[in-house]
Amino acid sequence: MARALDLVGDRWSLLVIRDAMDGARSFTEFHRRTGVARNILTDRLRKLAAHGVLVQRTAPSGRRQEYVLTDAGRDLFLVILSLRQWGERHAFASGETRSVLVDQHGAPVPEVVVTGTDGTPLDIDTTRVRKAGQEAADGG
Amino acid sequence: MARALDLVGDRWSLLVIRDAMDGARSFTEFHRRTGVARNILTDRLRKLAAHGVLVQRTAPSGRRQEYVLTDAGRDLFLVILSLRQWGERHAFASGETRSVLVDQHGAPVPEVVVTGTDGTPLDIDTTRVRKAGQEAADGG
Repeated sequence: MARALDLVGDRWSLLVIRDAMDGARSFTEFHRRTGVARNILTDRLRKLAAHGVLVQRTAPSGRRQEYVLTDAGRDLFLVILSLRQWGERHAFASGETRSVLVDQHGAPVPEVVVTGTDGTPLDIDTTRVRKAGQEAADGG
Repeated sequence: MARALDLVGDRWSLLVIRDAMDGARSFTEFHRRTGVARNILTDRLRKLAAHGVLVQRTAPSGRRQEYVLTDAGRDLFLVILSLRQWGERHAFASGETRSVLVDQHGAPVPEVVVTGTDGTPLDIDTTRVRKAGQEAADGG
């Protein structure tokens, strides 16, 4: 997880990724949506490209550069979704107006539930980190 | 999602939350695990408490302060898990040794799949953000 945070673990990077998922591609568009200062945005776009989350390419028009999510970037869907759903539960007042993530039929995306291989819901009480090399101790 | 990032969207806050989920409670323990400078750790613990993610209390021994996740903090389980699983897929070389999140039986937690209400897997191509107030347009 620390390695994931090295690559995407700051506020602006995550907002850029969110907006890329929502269709933003140009510097201007990212700037308008995130509201971040231009020098910070330049830095984050450069880092996300260096880390393989975005790829920079010439737009089909040939007139400007655009930034598109790589497969690794697209795979951050659940990270962005989990932050969104947590925010909906804990950072909005009841009844407050907010945007909604919907599927192709316009149905809201249900809250994601973590389950084990047997279908049991899991949380922080029923999971633990097994350090590398502890398999033998666990099996004994 | 921006509101979630206001509360927990920086690298050190997320590492503190991860370690709290893994059992860390004292300043010394968070300091040892995260490796963050003491002044930054002090700042992040204070902010996480102010935002209702951690609560500061006197340890049962009565001799020191400890920091315990609130319900909102515990609910960040999926955020932390999704970062961990993404990191496993994209920030480790094949075959590289790493820790594993396991359930109570020692079984690795499966990769989380996002599905719609009808069970269809969802990703960034099959979802979109519906801004507040657009329900009528969608329904028409």
